[in-house]
Amino acid sequence: MTLHNDATAQPCTAPLSATLDALRDALGDNAVRVGEQIGERAMTDWTRHAPTRPAAVLLPRTTDEVARALAICHAAYQPVVPQGGMTGLAGGAIARATDIALSLERLSGVEEIDSASATLTVRAGTTLQTAQEAAAEAGFELALDLGARGSCQIGGNLATNAGGNRVIQSGTARDQVLGLEVVLANGEVLSSLGKMVKNNTGYDLKHWFIGSEGTLGVITRAVLRLHPQRAARHTALVALDGYDAAVSLLRRLSTRFGNDIGAFEIMWPDFYDFGVKLTGARSPFDGAHSLYALIEHASFDASDSGERFAAALTDALDEGAMRDAVIAQSVADARALWAIRECTAEFPVRLDPINFDVSLPIGAIGAFVERCRAALDARWPGNESYFFGHIGDSNLHVTVDGHSIPGVDHHAVYAFVYDMLGPLHGSVSAEHGIGLLKREFLPISRSSAELAAMAAIRHALDPRGILNPGKLF
Amino acid sequence: MTLHNDATAQPCTAPLSATLDALRDALGDNAVRVGEQIGERAMTDWTRHAPTRPAAVLLPRTTDEVARALAICHAAYQPVVPQGGMTGLAGGAIARATDIALSLERLSGVEEIDSASATLTVRAGTTLQTAQEAAAEAGFELALDLGARGSCQIGGNLATNAGGNRVIQSGTARDQVLGLEVVLANGEVLSSLGKMVKNNTGYDLKHWFIGSEGTLGVITRAVLRLHPQRAARHTALVALDGYDAAVSLLRRLSTRFGNDIGAFEIMWPDFYDFGVKLTGARSPFDGAHSLYALIEHASFDASDSGERFAAALTDALDEGAMRDAVIAQSVADARALWAIRECTAEFPVRLDPINFDVSLPIGAIGAFVERCRAALDARWPGNESYFFGHIGDSNLHVTVDGHSIPGVDHHAVYAFVYDMLGPLHGSVSAEHGIGLLKREFLPISRSSAELAAMAAIRHALDPRGILNPGKLF
Repeated sequence: MTLHNDATAQPCTAPLSATLDALRDALGDNAVRVGEQIGERAMTDWTRHAPTRPAAVLLPRTTDEVARALAICHAAYQPVVPQGGMTGLAGGAIARATDIALSLERLSGVEEIDSASATLTVRAGTTLQTAQEAAAEAGFELALDLGARGSCQIGGNLATNAGGNRVIQSGTARDQVLGLEVVLANGEVLSSLGKMVKNNTGYDLKHWFIGSEGTLGVITRAVLRLHPQRAARHTALVALDGYDAAVSLLRRLSTRFGNDIGAFEIMWPDFYDFGVKLTGARSPFDGAHSLYALIEHASFDASDSGERFAAALTDALDEGAMRDAVIAQSVADARALWAIRECTAEFPVRLDPINFDVSLPIGAIGAFVERCRAALDARWPGNESYFFGHIGDSNLHVTVDGHSIPGVDHHAVYAFVYDMLGPLHGSVSAEHGIGLLKREFLPISRSSAELAAMAAIRHALDPRGILNPGKLF
Repeated sequence: MTLHNDATAQPCTAPLSATLDALRDALGDNAVRVGEQIGERAMTDWTRHAPTRPAAVLLPRTTDEVARALAICHAAYQPVVPQGGMTGLAGGAIARATDIALSLERLSGVEEIDSASATLTVRAGTTLQTAQEAAAEAGFELALDLGARGSCQIGGNLATNAGGNRVIQSGTARDQVLGLEVVLANGEVLSSLGKMVKNNTGYDLKHWFIGSEGTLGVITRAVLRLHPQRAARHTALVALDGYDAAVSLLRRLSTRFGNDIGAFEIMWPDFYDFGVKLTGARSPFDGAHSLYALIEHASFDASDSGERFAAALTDALDEGAMRDAVIAQSVADARALWAIRECTAEFPVRLDPINFDVSLPIGAIGAFVERCRAALDARWPGNESYFFGHIGDSNLHVTVDGHSIPGVDHHAVYAFVYDMLGPLHGSVSAEHGIGLLKREFLPISRSSAELAAMAAIRHALDPRGILNPGKLF
């Protein structure tokens, strides 16, 4: 297989001004912003990486307008960067000064909730929170949830296969999708908006575009799967004797409760102590422990689910499977426990965060944390680093505080940690994606044969390489 | 996008005998069967459609041997048809007389069970039952299950994205896959055998090959997700007052039990009465009803799950949500109820079955059945047709008995029923796939833009069109 890359794309055949005129004719003046009309929002994402004003921002209102805009840009070999809520953490939606950004924000709204099929049909520019609220109003739950819910958009969630808080229970963004509508680079519309759970009629096109970070097509609408609402939630914080005990406890609870276990968040002491300090709370435990887990039990049957969860934890304690446990007795209690885990919201303020979002086989995470910490300490004595993660999802987060290593080059820390992942067949991105910022590290997780296959597919669907060039590849 | 098709592949550049000599050199004489050495098993699938002896059958033992075999065939422009357990129902593994069949049967065995990750690594030629048993021995459940379990192979299950008995609870074959190894048409190996739940490092290649019916690559190994074993199963048969009542009951039970509802099989009276007659049993109900549902409740917690399920059914009965219900009190009882639904095993013996495996939005299935039955009766008075399905999966099965319409052309019946699906955005194949037998009907479920995109991807990954030519497209 030949590796095709963006370098084979020809230069623009039309001057930018002619392309913009054609776009104004197609979408209306109001839908084509340039220069000072472009706000800060379109310039960078939540990483604050390299803010750049794109050559223009397009604001189409319909799938047909997206199609017309792409057909014009395709004819002109004009690069286009799809933009959603700009909450990404990999620079995947940051445009270059010569790119045209295509914002989906006006293509928004929930189109339909089908209660019999338990589906929600939604436009790409709808915020996740709006979609969640519409589902809840109809008596259902949209199982996708993440911190950026108020700003992030469904299109971006799907283009990046977002993870978030419920993956252990309901999977990633990909697992919520039944149907998808996508506009290809040349303006052709692929509309596969079926509501069917099973549909084996040729290649399942939606899976090509989910997680492709805007490089294969622009997602315009989706049919999402809805779940019944869970009637009761219970939260516990437990203290454990090391990583293997955490994996055993996860398996023990899964065997008893299946995917009623809705969260199983692991915190190593560095993270836990920092979280307790930041929240100004007191640890509910006497003394220190080698590992902590925040566990949520979410059940459809509220009648005695709290008692059942408590009984399972009591059994585990009695049998020596954990050191200690506290169960939240109120919503306020539960929020206080979650606040420790969610101290990450303070990281950008308190730290100079160098963030890792890696995944590894679940059994390998404990040993990796030990090795990684020892290696960081040897290389940068005095570094302050925080380890935590969603181990049920095989996902480990590491944050190294740049302030604790004066003058350190962030890039050197990235390379140092990612290099340790390679031999373990780990992934350099569990959920945030590759975008711009992790491109050079992608070969750690993907073989040259895999990269060549990706490039061939990219070339087949976007031979001119106009969609989000410079991302992923 | 240009539509590429197999017609663009050049004719074989090497004579077959030279290709076979090269294959014998690479794999050993014993792994290349020709003529009378080829048994009946390689000639057709469970449809018994057009038995054909392929030019040769290859029996590689390793991924490397698959790679070498494909590289040789690729160089010679020699078509290759991957074969698994030959239990398909769409002719997808039937070779032409000039094709070489590539059987995965010697590439078999479970390689590893990782209890911490809850994963099973398995070779493509392993039967589903062998994989299920290995999982059970390790205390887990492989959630994929279908009637052909003793013969079908994991590679075929994944290549066709098999459905089966547990989809409502755990999804299709696709949903069980964490990692996949595939050999491309040119012999290149794409090995993505990760055990991670989350891995957003570029395109998720496994999804390109799952369900592609052997047209994009040959699956050689997979990492499958394991689930905890459910401790208790309870079965009920209920009588309902029409299709809308069935959908309401499904939603009611889902809201109370989530995916502890492990089966929700709908039977219209034609099917139910035939099933009762075939099993020689008596219907447990006095009198006739307009719809029946066989429901399985499978719980992780055995302590009082039977009581909970019974209470939910009693509530539904008291509130008029169903007409009648019986709950199996023993394994023998449960088997007797399931025997009614599983009378389909007798269809090939008792009927001349014209089978449909369609999917529709769940809310649309009831009206479709009414219209379809009326149309069949108008067109072919006296036809005997049976309607049943997995409605939680949006999947309806229809079997028309050819014996009841003397002299009927099966093809005319297919075209007649599929034509009714089109306006409803239904799918001509929920789970069996397209293969050879449904190719002409694929455009009913897929737009020309979708078909062109599929062809472009096929061309990108297999430009010579040697993999399973004539299938799907």
